[in-house]
Amino acid sequence: MEGLLRRWKEVLPALTTRVPQQQYWYRAHHGPPGGVKRLGLSQLFQPLNLKEDSLAGLESKPGELMCKSQRLMIQTGLIYPSSPGCYYYMPYTVRAMEKLVKVIDQEMQAIGGQKVNMPSLSSAALWRASGRWDLMSGELFRLADRHSKEYCLGPTHEETVTDLIASQGTLSYKQLPLLLYQITRKFRDEPKPRFGLLRSREFYMKDMYTFDISEEAARQTYNMVCDAYCNVFNRLGFHFVKVQADAGSIGGSMSHEFQLPASTGEDRLMICSDCSFSANVETIDPDQTDCPVCKGKLAETKGIEIGHTFYLGTKYSSVFNVTIHTAQNKPVLAEMGCYGLGITRILAASVEVLSTEDSIRWPNLIAPYQVCLIPPKKGSREEMGGVLLDSLYDSIIEAVPQIKGDVVLDDRTQLTIGKRLKDANRLGYPYVIIAGKKVFDNPPEFEVWSQNTGEIMFLTKEGVIELLSKVQVP
Amino acid sequence: MEGLLRRWKEVLPALTTRVPQQQYWYRAHHGPPGGVKRLGLSQLFQPLNLKEDSLAGLESKPGELMCKSQRLMIQTGLIYPSSPGCYYYMPYTVRAMEKLVKVIDQEMQAIGGQKVNMPSLSSAALWRASGRWDLMSGELFRLADRHSKEYCLGPTHEETVTDLIASQGTLSYKQLPLLLYQITRKFRDEPKPRFGLLRSREFYMKDMYTFDISEEAARQTYNMVCDAYCNVFNRLGFHFVKVQADAGSIGGSMSHEFQLPASTGEDRLMICSDCSFSANVETIDPDQTDCPVCKGKLAETKGIEIGHTFYLGTKYSSVFNVTIHTAQNKPVLAEMGCYGLGITRILAASVEVLSTEDSIRWPNLIAPYQVCLIPPKKGSREEMGGVLLDSLYDSIIEAVPQIKGDVVLDDRTQLTIGKRLKDANRLGYPYVIIAGKKVFDNPPEFEVWSQNTGEIMFLTKEGVIELLSKVQVP
Repeated sequence: MEGLLRRWKEVLPALTTRVPQQQYWYRAHHGPPGGVKRLGLSQLFQPLNLKEDSLAGLESKPGELMCKSQRLMIQTGLIYPSSPGCYYYMPYTVRAMEKLVKVIDQEMQAIGGQKVNMPSLSSAALWRASGRWDLMSGELFRLADRHSKEYCLGPTHEETVTDLIASQGTLSYKQLPLLLYQITRKFRDEPKPRFGLLRSREFYMKDMYTFDISEEAARQTYNMVCDAYCNVFNRLGFHFVKVQADAGSIGGSMSHEFQLPASTGEDRLMICSDCSFSANVETIDPDQTDCPVCKGKLAETKGIEIGHTFYLGTKYSSVFNVTIHTAQNKPVLAEMGCYGLGITRILAASVEVLSTEDSIRWPNLIAPYQVCLIPPKKGSREEMGGVLLDSLYDSIIEAVPQIKGDVVLDDRTQLTIGKRLKDANRLGYPYVIIAGKKVFDNPPEFEVWSQNTGEIMFLTKEGVIELLSKVQVP
Repeated sequence: MEGLLRRWKEVLPALTTRVPQQQYWYRAHHGPPGGVKRLGLSQLFQPLNLKEDSLAGLESKPGELMCKSQRLMIQTGLIYPSSPGCYYYMPYTVRAMEKLVKVIDQEMQAIGGQKVNMPSLSSAALWRASGRWDLMSGELFRLADRHSKEYCLGPTHEETVTDLIASQGTLSYKQLPLLLYQITRKFRDEPKPRFGLLRSREFYMKDMYTFDISEEAARQTYNMVCDAYCNVFNRLGFHFVKVQADAGSIGGSMSHEFQLPASTGEDRLMICSDCSFSANVETIDPDQTDCPVCKGKLAETKGIEIGHTFYLGTKYSSVFNVTIHTAQNKPVLAEMGCYGLGITRILAASVEVLSTEDSIRWPNLIAPYQVCLIPPKKGSREEMGGVLLDSLYDSIIEAVPQIKGDVVLDDRTQLTIGKRLKDANRLGYPYVIIAGKKVFDNPPEFEVWSQNTGEIMFLTKEGVIELLSKVQVP
C-alpha cells in the first residue's frame, strides 16, 4: 500500500487541476477561461442538502392516501405540495421532464406533428357549442374576467383547436394529414386529487389533434400516432399494454389507452393470455372472464394510464364546421382524432413502477442526471483520491460530450462515502462512481455502480469512458 | 447557354436523389432508411399555404389599435387571436420561442440558476399574507375550486417561491446565492390587452428569485443577474437600454428595466447624452430636462420593456419567515431579488423593432428557420435546377449538422420564384437560396439573399456551405 501510495503521488502533479476543491461553485458557474466546469451537488437545490430536521415538514398529512412515487418524490425533494393536487416541480424533476419532452417532440415530429401552443383561458362559448360546458361541469375550473366574460381553464383542447382550424378557412387535401400538438399545462378540478403527479389538478400534457379527409385516412393517421406512442414508451423501456378503452367525455367511436401495469393503478384491465385482446374493464361486461375474440381466459391486472387515443370522426368538426376541399374541389367535414400523453404522469408512473420502496429509479433516457461521482471523505486516508476523481470528471466531459450536463460531483466531502452513496441510491442516478481504495492501484480503478442493472464494476478511466459513451440521451 | 445546359445535364445523374419531388412530405416525416429528410413548406401549417380568401378573417376587428408586430404576426399566421389578449402560437412562433428559451436557459444556468416549475393556481391565503390580494385586485384572475377555496392565476411568484423556501427549513449560507427560476405561462387580467404579444393576458415569462445572506451579497447577485440579462440581449443583437425603474406592486428599493427603444413603446424613457444615466420617466420629475447626475441634457424616447429586475430586500422573506443560518449558526432573514424576462414579449418586440412595414425580421439566433430554399417553378425553363437545389439541401444538412432542422424547401412549385421569394421575404428567413439561371453555370451558382443584411450573393455549393457554417444556433 505504501508503495502504491508513493507511486500515485508521483503521477499526481500531472493530474492536479487548476482550482482548489472548495471553489466548485465558482467553477461550476463561472468557470475560468478555458477551465473545466464541474457541477457540485452541494450547490443544488435538493432538500437532501438541507438539515435533516427540515425533512419532517416534507411528509404528507397523516391519514392522506399516499402511493410509492408520491412518497419517494416528496421525501427526496423532487416535488413539493403547494395546495391540494398542485405541486412545485423541483430542479431534478424539471430536468427529467425536459428530457421526456424532447423524446416526445422527436417522435411527434417524426410523423409530421407540428407544435403549437394554445391558450389556457378557453371561452365558455366554445364549450357551450360542443355541449361540454355542462357535461364536464364538475371538472372544469371556471372563472370570469373583469368584463364578466366566462372562461374555463382548458383540461383538453378539442373545441379550441377545432375553432382555430375552422377560422383558417377550408383546408386543402394536399396539406393532410394535419397533425397539430402542444405540450402545455392543463387544469382539472379533480374531486380527489391524489397520488402526487399521478392525479393532480395542474399537470402537463402532450395533446395532439389530427385532421383527415376520410375515415380511412383518419384511421391510418390514428394507427400512425399509436405507433409513435409505442416508440416513446419503448424508448423509455416501459412494459406497457395498449387496451381498448372507453371514450368518456371526449367522445368518438374508437379509443385506446396505453397502460403501465402497477398494483397502485386506478384502472382495471382485462388481458387475454391467448391472443392480443386487452381492454379496460369499463368497455366490457365486468363479470366477463372469457376473451370475446378467442374465448381464452381473461386475466385481471391494474394499470396506470399514461396515454389515451381517440378516433373522433366528425364530432367536433361538425360543430365548428371544419371542412376540407377534396381533389374534386368538394368540401367535406374533417375526420379528426385526438391523442394525449400525460407528461407529469409519465414521470410519476416511471418512479412508481421502477423504484424500490426506498430508492427512486428512472428510465435511463430521462434520468435527471446520468452520473454521480463521489470523492472520498475529507480528512480520510483516501482523501487524495478526490483529485483522481476530479480528473475523471474532466475526462468524461471531454470524451463523452453528449452527457456534459449530466454529471454531478457529490462534493459534500464532510460526509462519508457510505452516506453519500445511500443518497445517490435513493435519488437513482443510473451510474454512481466512487473513488475507493482501488484508485491507489496502478492503473487506478474506480468503483462503478450501475444502479438500474444492479452491477458493480471496477473500471479504469478508459473503462469508465467506454461504459458512459454508450449512454443515450434524447 | 446551350453548352452550359448540356454540360450540366451530363453531371446531373450523379446528383439525382432517390425520391421524386412530390414525395417530400413522406420523406420529410418518414424518411426512407438512410435517406435524406427534407422539410417541404407546403406541408407546414402556415396560413400562407391556405387559399388567399381565407386571409381576410385573420385581420383584427376594424377600429382596434394595432401595432406593426401584431399586424405582421397575424397576417403571416404566426399568431391567431382566440379571445381578447389570448393568442394561439403557431408553429413558427413556437420554434422561435423554444430557441429563445434555450438562450435564456444557457445564460441563467451559467450564473448558477436552477430551473423549477411552480403552480399557476396560487392560494389566496399567500396573497393575503403579502397584502397583494387587494393591492393587485384588478389584475388578478381569481377563481374558486369545487370546495370554494380561492385562488388566483399567478402573474408573478414572489409569494409562491418564498413560501416554498420557507417550507424547506432554514437555508445554509453554504448554499448561497440560491437562484431559482422558471419559464412558465403567466396570467394577468389586463384592462386593455393590446399590441398582440406585447400586452396580453396570457404570456410566457422567465421569472427568477434569488436568496442571499446580506444586502451586500444580494446586490452582487442582483448585478450578476443584470449582466446575464445583458448577455441574453447582446446575443440577440438588441440595441437595448437599462434604465432605473419604479418597483410598482412588486416592491423593493432598487429596480431596473431593460428597454428596447421603439416608437410604439408604452414606456417613456429619459436618457442622458453625456453620462450613463437613463430612467423610466416614472422615477423622476416628468418635467425634468437636466440629468440629475451630470446636469447634461435628457433626451426622451419610448421603449418596450423586455426585462425588469427588483432588489426586494426582506419584503417577502419577512412575511413568510425565510431565514438563513450564518457561518456563526445565527438565523438571519434572507435578502431577496426577483427578475423577469417577457418571453413572448421579447418575440413580439423583436418583430416590432427589426421588421419593415411589410416584412418580418428576426434576430438571427432565434429565427424560426434559418434557411429557405426556393426551387424553380414547375414547367419553367429552369425547372431542372430543382434537382441541384435538392442536392444543395442534402449537402447543407450533411456539412452543417447544427442547422439540420432549420432548413425548409419551398416546394410550392406551382408558384413562380418571385411569388415565393415575396413570401420568404415577409416571413424573414435569415437566408433565402434560389436556384436561378446561374445554376446552369459551371460551377453552378446559387442566388443567396441574406435578408438581415440586405446582401445578395451568388455562391457555389461550397460557398453556401461556408456561409451557413457560420450560422449560430442556441
